[in-house]
Amino acid sequence: MTYTDPHLVRTLQVILEFLGTFAFAISGIRHAAQKHFDWFGGYVCGFAVAIGGGTIRDAMLGVRPFWMSNIMYVLVTGLALFLVILSRKWIKRLDNAWFVFDTLGLALFTIAGIQKTIALGHSFWVAVIMGCITGVAGGVIRDVLLNNIPVIFHKEIYAVASVAGGLTYWTLFSLGLGLPLTVIVTFLMICVIRFVAVGYHISLPTLHDEDEKKT
Amino acid sequence: MTYTDPHLVRTLQVILEFLGTFAFAISGIRHAAQKHFDWFGGYVCGFAVAIGGGTIRDAMLGVRPFWMSNIMYVLVTGLALFLVILSRKWIKRLDNAWFVFDTLGLALFTIAGIQKTIALGHSFWVAVIMGCITGVAGGVIRDVLLNNIPVIFHKEIYAVASVAGGLTYWTLFSLGLGLPLTVIVTFLMICVIRFVAVGYHISLPTLHDEDEKKT
Amino acid sequence: MTYTDPHLVRTLQVILEFLGTFAFAISGIRHAAQKHFDWFGGYVCGFAVAIGGGTIRDAMLGVRPFWMSNIMYVLVTGLALFLVILSRKWIKRLDNAWFVFDTLGLALFTIAGIQKTIALGHSFWVAVIMGCITGVAGGVIRDVLLNNIPVIFHKEIYAVASVAGGLTYWTLFSLGLGLPLTVIVTFLMICVIRFVAVGYHISLPTLHDEDEKKT
Repeated sequence: MTYTDPHLVRTLQVILEFLGTFAFAISGIRHAAQKHFDWFGGYVCGFAVAIGGGTIRDAMLGVRPFWMSNIMYVLVTGLALFLVILSRKWIKRLDNAWFVFDTLGLALFTIAGIQKTIALGHSFWVAVIMGCITGVAGGVIRDVLLNNIPVIFHKEIYAVASVAGGLTYWTLFSLGLGLPLTVIVTFLMICVIRFVAVGYHISLPTLHDEDEKKT
Repeated sequence: MTYTDPHLVRTLQVILEFLGTFAFAISGIRHAAQKHFDWFGGYVCGFAVAIGGGTIRDAMLGVRPFWMSNIMYVLVTGLALFLVILSRKWIKRLDNAWFVFDTLGLALFTIAGIQKTIALGHSFWVAVIMGCITGVAGGVIRDVLLNNIPVIFHKEIYAVASVAGGLTYWTLFSLGLGLPLTVIVTFLMICVIRFVAVGYHISLPTLHDEDEKKT
Repeated sequence: MTYTDPHLVRTLQVILEFLGTFAFAISGIRHAAQKHFDWFGGYVCGFAVAIGGGTIRDAMLGVRPFWMSNIMYVLVTGLALFLVILSRKWIKRLDNAWFVFDTLGLALFTIAGIQKTIALGHSFWVAVIMGCITGVAGGVIRDVLLNNIPVIFHKEIYAVASVAGGLTYWTLFSLGLGLPLTVIVTFLMICVIRFVAVGYHISLPTLHDEDEKKT
């Protein structure tokens, strides 16, 4: 990425990545707590949410999983576990913060997934799928490990915000808008869609069983 | 593959691949509908059945997932979702067609998996396993995402038809039967086993719990 | 590895690998039997426990899955299935043997995972994670396929023994203890932790739901 001030941008990106990873790990650990997992189980769930999407992406792209070259993800998950063990009340009181950080993470990881895929020479439609996988697959792994039906398949606009962001990125970039603006608009687009969808209880239509009456 | 008329064979293969992919996607989406997934969840389940097996195979073989170089699979899944949303009745009425197409898909994907594995220099016993994974693993992913016990592990002859096909391929090829005949006999073998097993309600013996009486 | 008698060591390693793989396969098939899987489902569950962890490790490390170059794992799983079908009583009577072999397998596979990761030039903290994945991920796959909550996330000290072994390996090797002694002490460490934990019913603390009272 070439911005006006690469240093500031890089710092901002690291902060966002830390917050997003932290919120993702917290989400995994809290879900694990609901099923009375032990500390190890909680750690694995937190780690799975934090790195699962990017790991599946990297396996498909045929590159080394991103977290293997940076111990940050292992440590952030440990910090998240420590805080959840230390104070459930405190964690719960910050619910709104986790929601915001989680959304920032979704936006950041989606964009990171798109850029990595494009950099490896794939088509844009592959990049949109990879961006979505990067953002949401960790949560699906968490739900599978917890023996729950993946929440993104039947509740809330979450993955759709990621896909919409991917399509926005593709469109703006193809229109020649330049990388900085493309990234910023995509980022805001994903955040706004998620905030609006949750704020106004908007969700996707549901599929119906064949024996039900049409509603 | 070198046949007498490569053009005809290629056309036939594309048609079979389309029908098989379509039937696989329909299967994923219908199962998702039974659990009231939303449109996104339905799409993901359909896509997972259509490309899941081949993707696991390609990850194990260390090559780029097949669907990344052909947008057909993404579009066919979209078409399947559209049709399921549009008319559940119509989809249900064509149950026999889906069953036939699904079986054609199983046979085709099994053979494709075997050939790709052999082409990459692996042993035949690895190819039989990869053929089976290509044909059936998508359905296992679907069942895991839906929080169901994978149906191929306790019902119907399905994976076994794929494995029997793989062993047939191996035997005929080793006997020097030539590729065209090997492929055709394997294809028919898989279809016939599946049709007969479903027609006559044949299934594999079941394992028993250790506390049960032997039956 | 350079030991005093490489031939003896190699033989010992093959025996341990056979026993460990066998115990892992037996574990998968017995769990499958509890859910009344058919023979194919039982085989897949057994095979998944036997090769699942190493396969995920190899996919992440970007190398060919280990079992593809040695038909032993396929055959051992088949033998395990045959024995479970033949005599459930006999299998049950040997419960203590399976427990011991399973622990030997856990220790062996953990060390194998660590060594392979280090040999590919990764950091030691990556190797500890990979060692743990090699040892325990197969059991997680088994539980996911059986639609159970993974047992290692909420019961018994199992994965923790693997991680403790990994940290031991790291420490001893860094202290310059030499490979033979490092391997032997790590191996014993994993076995002892597991035996003591099971013998004295020691388990990790559990995470609590936010609505529960602190206990």
